[in-house]
Amino acid sequence: MVSVLITGANRGIGLGLTRHLLSEPSVSTVIASVRDVDSAKELKALSSPKLHIIQLEVVNEESIAAAAKKVAEIVGEKGLDILINNAGIGYVTPLNADNISKAKILENLEVNTVAPLLIANKFYPLLKSASSKKGSAQIANISSALGSLEDVPTVGSAMKCTVYGMTKSALNMLTRRIAVEWKDDKIRATSFCPGWVKTDMGSQAATYTVDESTIPLSKLILALTEEHNGNFYHHTGEKIPW
Amino acid sequence: MVSVLITGANRGIGLGLTRHLLSEPSVSTVIASVRDVDSAKELKALSSPKLHIIQLEVVNEESIAAAAKKVAEIVGEKGLDILINNAGIGYVTPLNADNISKAKILENLEVNTVAPLLIANKFYPLLKSASSKKGSAQIANISSALGSLEDVPTVGSAMKCTVYGMTKSALNMLTRRIAVEWKDDKIRATSFCPGWVKTDMGSQAATYTVDESTIPLSKLILALTEEHNGNFYHHTGEKIPW
Ligand SMILES: NC(=O)c1ccc[n+]([C@@H]2O[C@H](COP(=O)([O-])OP(=O)(O)OC[C@H]3O[C@@H](n4cnc5c(N)ncnc54)[C@H](OP(=O)(O)O)[C@@H]3O)[C@@H](O)[C@H]2O)c1
Ligand SMILES: NC(=O)c1ccc[n+]([C@@H]2O[C@H](COP(=O)([O-])OP(=O)(O)OC[C@H]3O[C@@H](n4cnc5c(N)ncnc54)[C@H](OP(=O)(O)O)[C@@H]3O)[C@@H](O)[C@H]2O)c1
Repeated sequence: MVSVLITGANRGIGLGLTRHLLSEPSVSTVIASVRDVDSAKELKALSSPKLHIIQLEVVNEESIAAAAKKVAEIVGEKGLDILINNAGIGYVTPLNADNISKAKILENLEVNTVAPLLIANKFYPLLKSASSKKGSAQIANISSALGSLEDVPTVGSAMKCTVYGMTKSALNMLTRRIAVEWKDDKIRATSFCPGWVKTDMGSQAATYTVDESTIPLSKLILALTEEHNGNFYHHTGEKIPW
Repeated sequence: MVSVLITGANRGIGLGLTRHLLSEPSVSTVIASVRDVDSAKELKALSSPKLHIIQLEVVNEESIAAAAKKVAEIVGEKGLDILINNAGIGYVTPLNADNISKAKILENLEVNTVAPLLIANKFYPLLKSASSKKGSAQIANISSALGSLEDVPTVGSAMKCTVYGMTKSALNMLTRRIAVEWKDDKIRATSFCPGWVKTDMGSQAATYTVDESTIPLSKLILALTEEHNGNFYHHTGEKIPW
């Protein structure tokens, strides 16, 4: 029986992951974190005894620390088995735009890149508790195929997604380095692309429904082994090059 | 005859590149930018008629705009042939450090990742002027082998350089996307690793002297062709995987 923490769980892919993880028999505890608990109506409607809803604004260090305390109370000495860094935003701009915004670039990096690092850092003791008891703990970083350097000429090459891609390449480096640096702690990290999904970010023009992405994605995350450590996968399980 | 702009030219690799580019017969103009012109003694001592020293604090948008104006005055309607984004800093920290600093992570991203993007954006018109006259203009991003996702298990795996590596992976994504997005403008981008070099950043324990790195590196930068566009090389010319 495993415990899972998800960031950005009030809508989109985070909500989908929460829903499907709740229905998995191997999952005992799903801690769904959101920045505004009051307005998380769809999430609250899931009302399962396994579900805990907590506040987490991922760019706020005090909020991360408070969330870590809350999660420690919920999971107790068993620790946290799986951390899913899902919260994310996108900034689309041509590279030669007159009005390119430094503030928006920094905000994108803060949410998509810096927050997952700070959350991994702060939840390290809880992940280590779990791994020391069960042999491993997992960090799943929700990245994007637009973060694949190799695939730039073929994936989204016409999109003006440089800034977003940069945040996800950097997130992938976090995945790679955790896999090396926390290897002896048996805390593994894996990057995922959920596919192009019908959410506020992906728009209704996207390829996959939230269910089509998050049903297989939840199963992949629950089945992570040492073989996946430090690698990058589509929600289909297919490997993505760096 | 080409014009080159270098950031962080007062010491280390930037100073070495400036010195060796000045000695190349194909280079007519070297614009060496530094954040503090007054204290750039070694740079000033190079005193060549090709050398122009200007102020540029790479994280300051007003400073970037002022530098672009200065460079436009220097190069005139010929435009700028080569932009070298060299200024950089490093933040070394274990991922599980109690005192990990969000401010330092953001500062690293700002200097190593965001600044090269904002500088490329602001110098786009000058690069385009040059490329429309000569058939191409070049952006050389001074990255690091520590930014190679592929090589994490073998290169610097024992170093606590996650944050630095993240900034350089993201910089490499900038290189990749410029190569695609500005292809029709014939503005090319290439990433380089200078090697482990004896500078303030690299320390005196490093493998290469500044000359051993920057003599071949200057020659590579002057010899860039469409074949190199969007790729990543050692100062030796050997390709680095993403
Ligand atoms: N949709 C796609 O096609 C697609 C493709 C590739 C990758 N992804 C990645 O998948 C992840 C989820 O995307 P999505 O499509 O579900 O996006 P979404 O529908 O726009 O939802 C984004 C989620 O992130 C949360 N969030 C944003 N900033 C936050 C902050 N500072 N603190 C806490 N939570 C924050 C949002 O909370 P609020 O409601 O409070 O704003 C929301 O829950 C992202 O990392 C995205 O990059 C999506
Ligand atoms: N040395 C190595 O082994 C090595 C290996 C791989 C990659 N690199 C890369 O090579 C580049 C140069 O490194 P280095 O070894 O020459 O480092 P260095 O000796 O520490 O010099 C760094 C340079 O960057 C400038 N700089 C830093 N922040 C700046 C800012 N905000 N605005 C303007 N300039 C700024 C510094 O100016 P001030 O003097 O004003 O601080 C200095 O000129 C960096 O991008 C680095 O990541 C170095």
